[in-house]
Amino acid sequence: MADALPAPSAISGTTRLYVVLGDPVAQVRAPGLLNDLFARTARDAVLVPVHVDPDGLGEVMRGLRRMRNLDGILVTVPHKIEVCRYADRLGPAADLAGSANALRRNPDGTWLADNFDGAGFVHGLRANGHDPAGTTVALAGAGGAGRAVAAALLSAGAARLWLYDPDSARRTDVLARLDARWPGRVRAGVEGDLGDAGDRVDIAVNATPLGMSPGDRLPFDPARLPPTCVVADIIMKPAETALLKAARDGGRPVVHGRHMLDSQVLLYEEFFALHAPERNGRWEP
Amino acid sequence: MADALPAPSAISGTTRLYVVLGDPVAQVRAPGLLNDLFARTARDAVLVPVHVDPDGLGEVMRGLRRMRNLDGILVTVPHKIEVCRYADRLGPAADLAGSANALRRNPDGTWLADNFDGAGFVHGLRANGHDPAGTTVALAGAGGAGRAVAAALLSAGAARLWLYDPDSARRTDVLARLDARWPGRVRAGVEGDLGDAGDRVDIAVNATPLGMSPGDRLPFDPARLPPTCVVADIIMKPAETALLKAARDGGRPVVHGRHMLDSQVLLYEEFFALHAPERNGRWEP
Repeated sequence: MADALPAPSAISGTTRLYVVLGDPVAQVRAPGLLNDLFARTARDAVLVPVHVDPDGLGEVMRGLRRMRNLDGILVTVPHKIEVCRYADRLGPAADLAGSANALRRNPDGTWLADNFDGAGFVHGLRANGHDPAGTTVALAGAGGAGRAVAAALLSAGAARLWLYDPDSARRTDVLARLDARWPGRVRAGVEGDLGDAGDRVDIAVNATPLGMSPGDRLPFDPARLPPTCVVADIIMKPAETALLKAARDGGRPVVHGRHMLDSQVLLYEEFFALHAPERNGRWEP
Repeated sequence: MADALPAPSAISGTTRLYVVLGDPVAQVRAPGLLNDLFARTARDAVLVPVHVDPDGLGEVMRGLRRMRNLDGILVTVPHKIEVCRYADRLGPAADLAGSANALRRNPDGTWLADNFDGAGFVHGLRANGHDPAGTTVALAGAGGAGRAVAAALLSAGAARLWLYDPDSARRTDVLARLDARWPGRVRAGVEGDLGDAGDRVDIAVNATPLGMSPGDRLPFDPARLPPTCVVADIIMKPAETALLKAARDGGRPVVHGRHMLDSQVLLYEEFFALHAPERNGRWEP
């Protein structure tokens, strides 16, 4: 059922559209956050969830680009990497990470993709009192969000980043991409449980989907990390994953997934120019 | 800006989608009517407008069919005829008219298109005290809505129907289609201003888009119709077209466009099974 969030403005024929794409999509929090933002800023706009599986992504993206009253697309798991193929241009963070979580229609009708996961994650980390500058980070998951978080942590001054992913081709590709930009600071973690880096890690991050479903195993065992190691998860539902619960039970500081998204709302406001005067719905291609 | 209509329930990741397709789309009233219906029946569903031009219809329809949380599509001008190509099956009214204004996803994942314009129009006519049985009707516009209204009027017992459309190929095609079902009751009107049928017409209908824009000429001159002739328009915005104003000024009874759509809400409730218990959003293909 619908969350107990503020209802969007009444929808009419003039309402501008935004969507969030995912598979699954039931867990997404973007509709509540963005529709609340539209209501606060008195925009005649609405964001709706769109459930599309990987096989359907191409047709859905081509269809969305043809909708003349559609101004923005948010993207969640598992489409953040593939969606880049349907943008005309990549912003700096999307280009660096090779993944995107937001696309906007420009006034000239072209589509720009960028990625705010990394900036949102680092902002949330700092808001919880943890500055990544000079730290050693262990990050599990080199998918669409993981690579963006990795790039943002390095950009924020992380001294060393261990990257874990069971898909060796993907791990190698992301490692090469990050190493080109930050030479010598990234290492491939090859053992499970952050074994290589375990006793030196300041911040451990789960950027895998492990923890979204009740039966999931832990992405790594927080008990093997140093007692002061910060444990962060990017999963938003459930709010507290089994990983975070185990970390907290062991006395380690934790950072919840919601901070990554909450911190992105301001960035979306900028990206979609929601602070600017409304254009009377005239972002026509 | 948004109409002063009831806001839909708060939208979340579980919300089911409906769209209304048109070009233009700013004038559509479906979002207000359907979102009000969803709120009254406590459905976790929302209808949003989608602006798509004829060139983009195919890509938009292919994209919409791939959205797994999309259950229904309403269709307005100018897509009612072309949209039939993207349905797996046509319901009886759509088959007869060769045009559709609603598509639903069936539990097996196929899409059924049907047309409720005709039934809605006749229902609205009767609700205003005008029974088409035994009457002579003059109808201007053989497009997607016009042909559906024509079929419904004949089905409701209209004795004779004069069909006007400046596109002779379209007029001939629709005439043949209707004549096959109701032999000898349909005539092609070839002059402007309903000249052929003028002095014998009981009901005159505008099913052209003339009247949507302030500068439009009248689709026909109501002053040339008999003084008791009912004049009906299917245009909803403006609520009172120049045609209806002229007819009313001349003392003729009028029927406004809103009745056609208002009468369809009950039919949509049936077509989309909105009275049935909610399926927990599990209309998966």
